[in-house]
Amino acid sequence: MLKHSFYNDYSEGAHPRLLEILAQTNYAQESGYGEDGLSRQAVELIQQALGSPQAAVHFVSGGTQTNMIALAAALKPYESVIGAETAHIHVHEAGAVEATGHKINIVPTPDGKLTPVMVAAVCAQHTDEHMVKPRVVFISNASEVGTIYTKSELEQLSQVCRAQGLYLYMDGARLGSALASPQSDLTLADLARLLDMFYIGGTKNGALLGEALVITNPALQADFRYHLKQHGALLAKGRLLGSQFLGLFEGDLYFELARQANRMSLKLAEAISGLGFGFLAPPATNQLFPILPDGLIAALQAEYGFYIWSRVNAERSAIRLVTSWATPEAKVDEFIADLRRLTA
Amino acid sequence: MLKHSFYNDYSEGAHPRLLEILAQTNYAQESGYGEDGLSRQAVELIQQALGSPQAAVHFVSGGTQTNMIALAAALKPYESVIGAETAHIHVHEAGAVEATGHKINIVPTPDGKLTPVMVAAVCAQHTDEHMVKPRVVFISNASEVGTIYTKSELEQLSQVCRAQGLYLYMDGARLGSALASPQSDLTLADLARLLDMFYIGGTKNGALLGEALVITNPALQADFRYHLKQHGALLAKGRLLGSQFLGLFEGDLYFELARQANRMSLKLAEAISGLGFGFLAPPATNQLFPILPDGLIAALQAEYGFYIWSRVNAERSAIRLVTSWATPEAKVDEFIADLRRLTA
Amino acid sequence: MLKHSFYNDYSEGAHPRLLEILAQTNYAQESGYGEDGLSRQAVELIQQALGSPQAAVHFVSGGTQTNMIALAAALKPYESVIGAETAHIHVHEAGAVEATGHKINIVPTPDGKLTPVMVAAVCAQHTDEHMVKPRVVFISNASEVGTIYTKSELEQLSQVCRAQGLYLYMDGARLGSALASPQSDLTLADLARLLDMFYIGGTKNGALLGEALVITNPALQADFRYHLKQHGALLAKGRLLGSQFLGLFEGDLYFELARQANRMSLKLAEAISGLGFGFLAPPATNQLFPILPDGLIAALQAEYGFYIWSRVNAERSAIRLVTSWATPEAKVDEFIADLRRLTA
Amino acid sequence: MLKHSFYNDYSEGAHPRLLEILAQTNYAQESGYGEDGLSRQAVELIQQALGSPQAAVHFVSGGTQTNMIALAAALKPYESVIGAETAHIHVHEAGAVEATGHKINIVPTPDGKLTPVMVAAVCAQHTDEHMVKPRVVFISNASEVGTIYTKSELEQLSQVCRAQGLYLYMDGARLGSALASPQSDLTLADLARLLDMFYIGGTKNGALLGEALVITNPALQADFRYHLKQHGALLAKGRLLGSQFLGLFEGDLYFELARQANRMSLKLAEAISGLGFGFLAPPATNQLFPILPDGLIAALQAEYGFYIWSRVNAERSAIRLVTSWATPEAKVDEFIADLRRLTA
Repeated sequence: MLKHSFYNDYSEGAHPRLLEILAQTNYAQESGYGEDGLSRQAVELIQQALGSPQAAVHFVSGGTQTNMIALAAALKPYESVIGAETAHIHVHEAGAVEATGHKINIVPTPDGKLTPVMVAAVCAQHTDEHMVKPRVVFISNASEVGTIYTKSELEQLSQVCRAQGLYLYMDGARLGSALASPQSDLTLADLARLLDMFYIGGTKNGALLGEALVITNPALQADFRYHLKQHGALLAKGRLLGSQFLGLFEGDLYFELARQANRMSLKLAEAISGLGFGFLAPPATNQLFPILPDGLIAALQAEYGFYIWSRVNAERSAIRLVTSWATPEAKVDEFIADLRRLTA
Repeated sequence: MLKHSFYNDYSEGAHPRLLEILAQTNYAQESGYGEDGLSRQAVELIQQALGSPQAAVHFVSGGTQTNMIALAAALKPYESVIGAETAHIHVHEAGAVEATGHKINIVPTPDGKLTPVMVAAVCAQHTDEHMVKPRVVFISNASEVGTIYTKSELEQLSQVCRAQGLYLYMDGARLGSALASPQSDLTLADLARLLDMFYIGGTKNGALLGEALVITNPALQADFRYHLKQHGALLAKGRLLGSQFLGLFEGDLYFELARQANRMSLKLAEAISGLGFGFLAPPATNQLFPILPDGLIAALQAEYGFYIWSRVNAERSAIRLVTSWATPEAKVDEFIADLRRLTA
Repeated sequence: MLKHSFYNDYSEGAHPRLLEILAQTNYAQESGYGEDGLSRQAVELIQQALGSPQAAVHFVSGGTQTNMIALAAALKPYESVIGAETAHIHVHEAGAVEATGHKINIVPTPDGKLTPVMVAAVCAQHTDEHMVKPRVVFISNASEVGTIYTKSELEQLSQVCRAQGLYLYMDGARLGSALASPQSDLTLADLARLLDMFYIGGTKNGALLGEALVITNPALQADFRYHLKQHGALLAKGRLLGSQFLGLFEGDLYFELARQANRMSLKLAEAISGLGFGFLAPPATNQLFPILPDGLIAALQAEYGFYIWSRVNAERSAIRLVTSWATPEAKVDEFIADLRRLTA
Repeated sequence: MLKHSFYNDYSEGAHPRLLEILAQTNYAQESGYGEDGLSRQAVELIQQALGSPQAAVHFVSGGTQTNMIALAAALKPYESVIGAETAHIHVHEAGAVEATGHKINIVPTPDGKLTPVMVAAVCAQHTDEHMVKPRVVFISNASEVGTIYTKSELEQLSQVCRAQGLYLYMDGARLGSALASPQSDLTLADLARLLDMFYIGGTKNGALLGEALVITNPALQADFRYHLKQHGALLAKGRLLGSQFLGLFEGDLYFELARQANRMSLKLAEAISGLGFGFLAPPATNQLFPILPDGLIAALQAEYGFYIWSRVNAERSAIRLVTSWATPEAKVDEFIADLRRLTA
């Protein structure tokens, strides 16, 4: 029996406020397929949070589904997506993007983040109809290795995309943690301004399920519900998705939960750093990648759940520790104490 | 403000027992993507209900998603699905089956049900590689017009399918109501014996969301989670789906709810019959298709929600009335009283 | 050993003039993938024949390939094609259109031809995102049962398509025979004016292979070579396709061959009529569908090759006789003589 | 006006023997879609050349079409192809493989060739349903950079594929040149023994068009014509394809033409070497990649056509020179003389 699992941020159910709304609204008769009152309210709250009343907002059950539908909707058959080598769509979505018919142009990166230079280089290599035509740039914030984009980085990326006729899409599975990071200077309103599409992740930030796909580019808004339906993404009881985001955005709950996850993560990071260990990427969000001796890792694994991420050298590996809104501070303290004991 | 909506059976949330389980298990740390303890328990309960421990069971969010994934997984690129002209996959799934690359061979039927003769005729017409090759027979029970299959009908269909090398698949969006119908002589164990794949619908029978896809044919079981993941159907918090079916199958709740829906429907049917009105198809499940004068329909629409299904002649149309586990008997009584008053 | 095959119009090789061009140009070094001088000349000749210098013209190897690429290029993922129940894409292309992800909305017709009323009815039935969205109307001229469109019919169809936001596409596998029919009042210039896309069939009218896809709607022209390449339709030695159409359009050869095929067909039709037999559809092009007694059919089959098309009643069936530019008049005369003898 | 083009090996038409067969058989009535007598003869000749009467052989118009159809036919929706970073399917087929729904797992290589270690490494990284499942190993012989596989290399690759449950597929666009290379110890019979599928390229070795796809693995043979038809690859006048391979394999013409191309290429290579220049990859087939000073390249470009392949350093680039059966030795001599003059 493990003391605690730091495997991921979807180990628990939902924040109790979201369960409460479910219970309170359970017997109201509502329209199906996302045309219910709860979903409509949630859409309005998100539009307000974005400062963008004309943004289209759709609720989808999970991240892979959101990515594949949004990207396929934006692409003509011969168009492709540019993504980092670490991109979730490339590595961990079972070829979902390719299953919709599209190639991903892979770019190696030092930190999971794309730059204007990388994007321009891919475009320069794709010159005629014997090759695919890049059309969407896919980024993740937080990235799959826990790093985040600054406002300046995102502005530059947005600029090169608009100059090259590319759409810019952001996977926001961990967007709450990214925007709530002490190192972030981005706001939801910035995203609405700089991106063509992105999603606000609910599953990993307090919801039972659900991601809010935001489409700011009007050219991509038309007929979007057809895409959702064709991929089986319109839940009959769409109210379930709507109610989750209603709870997250009726007040500041969404960011409150993200800040709490980050607090736990950064407390861990500080302690790990204090013991002289480094990280694969500088700690910024609720995912940490400390580099530890293999013996220590083995000892920790006897008591805690986490993934070994990658081998760093003959004696050390990076592990992944993930916190969430539901991570008890007592478990974080216990982990730190155990770590100190094991390295004493 | 309408007195009540008979539009559909997914107007309300979940049966309270299912919300209760959600709350009780909310803070337990569980594995993701359907590998959690709640889902494992639910799978076992369903295998027991089927009398088939070797059946594979997967939980999927909704019916369109289940149909498209199951059918695409069973088909080679040039193979097709045989379905009734009324089949949900043909009419109301936005071309999801075709979007996975497969043609549906459409068969007109008098009552929404396929027969061995119809299936054999389609096979006889498809003789070489200039045409698609039919491979799966798609049926719905209850059908889209509320009719149900008898055991004898299903045995004959199963036999012709096995003789022709066809898979037999059943859409069970309203399977609870079908099996709980006083006119049904089928059991879950019969389905496990006669079908290659089918799903047990949760969304329309008490769950917040979720369908339990059952794969009895071992040839179709291998690697199925790859298909689910590639279509974005593996929820990170798969426990949500598992917990719904745990609640429905830990006792007799699934069929209890279906019987309750049917009781309400058949009470309505009896009253409508008693007033001398006929039906598009004989009442059997929780969907009724009474044929009423247009004036009466207009009067009812002022107070109740329901769809006008099809025009029958210059003065009469069929409407659709749907009941569910959540339909209050008082509303049924009120509707009957209003109907009597309006036809008095 | 049969006296002659009337099975189809692709039984022989190419008209000798086309082989001659092949031989004459064989050693010239040319660019690949359709960017050669022969193809460029052929495109210009076709643009002149259409009276439409801004029409895009692409050469594709065969009809199924042309249909699938052109239709898929014109459709968003959730959009569908409206076609007659007899449409080649529905019946005889092995589900190629569905394999690109699109549903065909099938319409029963008396004569293989679509009318504005039929098209409007399909549109009226498709009202929301639970259904596909019709976007292209697919017609064949000559149709699969040998009938042809008049200018007035095509103008009306074009009008309803433009009013409804639909593209109008024509399969021209037997376009030569259709336009060369004594009953046709259509010209290539009419087609360029009334259609968004169509193809001028070469394979069945004198070429070794090749169809000339004409795209008149500028919205459908952009990036079309990407679609061709992605489907493997850009031949490395595209000069082969270009040279065929160069030969067909450098003078009047294309229509000369079609008229010759029609002369043979109509000579057959006159003789068959003269013996008191009727036809499934009135003879107009190089396909005839005479209705003959089964005994007579059996006797003819001993000496000639042709398909039995459909059973008409207990004693009679329709057969299909196809002529081409290569059908020797002597064989036609022989068939007529045999028919007279057998019915004497 | 250039003295000669060394751009590629599909600049000219067909070897005259193939045109002669076309002319001789032009008026024979033949069945369509590859069921003609010429195609049947050609299939038998190829089976004899392979020493494998049970191999299935299908004629397809071009390489991209062959690759996409063969690979898609071998793969379940979630399965992927392993290929070198230089693989034609990855770089120069406009995303055709992805358009059929499949990911390509890309492997960097020093010389365009895959090794058992590379294949095993990709398999080791793909462990569960969150990732695609590698199923086919794609190699090219000659590779896209002109290198070839030895018998020993191919045996080892075949062994690892069979051990891992992978299919081994070879793109043979330039198979003639590869097998005819003085450095090759492979035969067609070896390929039939070691590979599951491969194609014998006709287009780049004397044919007007056409590749002969060979399927030796019986599990991949069933229903293959459905795949061909669905992708529009069954030419109505399939005799055209059959006649090309009839001519190439009725005697030794196929290898005679390849040897001639190689002779021209290796004469060029020797001269270039003699002047002290190196190559990107050691010369072995009809593609050469000499590394030359930029000034010399510019001077050559004024008189000859060829591609600049890649920059090697600040002053030198690799160019690509391609010869074929149709390359006149006088042009090769002229090129060598000019090269000597320019470097004197």
